[in-house]
Amino acid sequence: MATTKKSTIKDIANVLGITPSAVSKALNNHPRISVKTKEDVIQVAKNLNYQPNHLASALRKGKSNLVGLIIPKANSHFFSSVLQSIEEILNDKGYSVIISQSNESYKKECESIDVLLFTQVDGVIASLANETLNFSHYEKIKANGIPLILFDRGENDLEVDYVGINDYQSSHLIVNHLVEQGCKRIAHIAGYRHTRIYKNRIIGYVDALKKHDLPIENDLILEGSLSLEDGRKKMEALLKLPNRPDAVYAAGDFAALGALQVLKENQIKVPDEISLVGFGNEPFTSFVSPSITTINQHSEEIGRLAAEAFLYRIKNPKKKVSLNKMILNAELVVRESSNKNP
Amino acid sequence: MATTKKSTIKDIANVLGITPSAVSKALNNHPRISVKTKEDVIQVAKNLNYQPNHLASALRKGKSNLVGLIIPKANSHFFSSVLQSIEEILNDKGYSVIISQSNESYKKECESIDVLLFTQVDGVIASLANETLNFSHYEKIKANGIPLILFDRGENDLEVDYVGINDYQSSHLIVNHLVEQGCKRIAHIAGYRHTRIYKNRIIGYVDALKKHDLPIENDLILEGSLSLEDGRKKMEALLKLPNRPDAVYAAGDFAALGALQVLKENQIKVPDEISLVGFGNEPFTSFVSPSITTINQHSEEIGRLAAEAFLYRIKNPKKKVSLNKMILNAELVVRESSNKNP
Repeated sequence: MATTKKSTIKDIANVLGITPSAVSKALNNHPRISVKTKEDVIQVAKNLNYQPNHLASALRKGKSNLVGLIIPKANSHFFSSVLQSIEEILNDKGYSVIISQSNESYKKECESIDVLLFTQVDGVIASLANETLNFSHYEKIKANGIPLILFDRGENDLEVDYVGINDYQSSHLIVNHLVEQGCKRIAHIAGYRHTRIYKNRIIGYVDALKKHDLPIENDLILEGSLSLEDGRKKMEALLKLPNRPDAVYAAGDFAALGALQVLKENQIKVPDEISLVGFGNEPFTSFVSPSITTINQHSEEIGRLAAEAFLYRIKNPKKKVSLNKMILNAELVVRESSNKNP
Repeated sequence: MATTKKSTIKDIANVLGITPSAVSKALNNHPRISVKTKEDVIQVAKNLNYQPNHLASALRKGKSNLVGLIIPKANSHFFSSVLQSIEEILNDKGYSVIISQSNESYKKECESIDVLLFTQVDGVIASLANETLNFSHYEKIKANGIPLILFDRGENDLEVDYVGINDYQSSHLIVNHLVEQGCKRIAHIAGYRHTRIYKNRIIGYVDALKKHDLPIENDLILEGSLSLEDGRKKMEALLKLPNRPDAVYAAGDFAALGALQVLKENQIKVPDEISLVGFGNEPFTSFVSPSITTINQHSEEIGRLAAEAFLYRIKNPKKKVSLNKMILNAELVVRESSNKNP
């Protein structure tokens, strides 16, 4: 059985012949403590390999007041806006949030989980990487007996709380709108269907087409990473079809932006020749020209609900049942790229 | 003196009458272990309040293989690109990066430092919040005897390594270019001068105007947060001047974007009536219309140099002198918003 012998503030005080309170103040850079004393304290602290005491205390109490957040990529307005909202609520309750980026990689996501558990987080809020196909690595978090909340990319069969928007209904909003605008051949630049949110968008798209008696053609459904580059490639492929679409629904705004670039480069009029809809309401969708119609994912609301789900689980650790599956209705933001009668 | 008694994998194995290796496999969700055994192991681990062993081991060895990154805001291409570059290099050397966002707040930056020290990081790489006026909270990191590397917003008098671009020279690049385009009244939407990078941009701007015998007017230098909203307000103020500028240099791309929106709303031709230059090369600067001339800050290079500075300090903890102050020359990316003769 491992025991760790740690030096304390008292040890430092004894060496220097000053009070523990003075040591504490020196370590916190208090203005009342002289520079000389601060330097002495720092030197002795180093010599004794002093580590701040709250870690040991957290280990004893089993509480760090840290919440870990795993996001696929930092460079997305959606994720940073969810983060903002989570931080506002959790900071207010005395928690700090530390972030680990999976960079859309399954391997890095596994490492993120290990790192966050190592740092003794009191809970984890996560959205899955594109590459992630199974969820067993998340069992580790459950094994640690701390709450796990998933959001956006994370609807799954793990028995944990989940917050996201209604992807199936979102596709209906988009297709209905495009049909109203007179579109008849609607293509879908889709995400990989192994991720449930993208699968639900595809199913919603197919069902909505059926509802309107429109053709469902495999050539018009192109799965990919939804990056800007991916959107460009998929749009180029669609333009090469013998029978071009008259509308494109991209399951992500960056892909929609790539598609828009290709349409502009080919002097194709948007929305008159081809209408375009994205997904996510990234800020750039409102200021590119033409501005891009898109789905507002209610990122602040998602962050708020995820944070509150964590706080609820922390307060009610014994409650096993009544999982929260919070599915918000999304909102279609109509802009120039699909509005033929402004 | 505090001693912590922690339960181990062996304890779990003893309770269940299985081997420690089986416990370890169960905890890592190994496919060879039955679901029943996994459930038993998880239950016993919970009962014994088992914590993964590597933390204790890290405390003994004084090494966590974690590096903390403090960034002002996650929602910026510059910071996420620096992060990307830092992670690539440090992951390769066996380090993981955890991120804490200061959200431009001094108070949150102090908390970020506490949180990262709490998690036993082996070093900290940081860029300062807009609000930060003094650096004494960073002394805590030095007191812990671990490397501190600052980048971008962080040039200072702390004796630590720093990586950034040459802000003074960048202003010269911008002013020289605008003068070449025939501009004579160049306004500056500036950052707060208490942050050294913004101060250097202001000084560079003033010196470059002097070099070209152009007027330096206080009305034309407006300090602020450089947010999109701030850029809008500053542009509105500039348009109300009796003697309007014929060019605007914003010290950040989001502010430049806000300025561009106001110019477009007022039907002012860019660049013919007013030329516009931003700073940072955020991706949107290339795809708005007109595209925005800006400064490329070499974010990947900054990340690489910061990561390498950390690795150097870890390997050479005794080396006190020869601090690295790495100042990179920036690059002007000329686009439509300032190019009158395309």
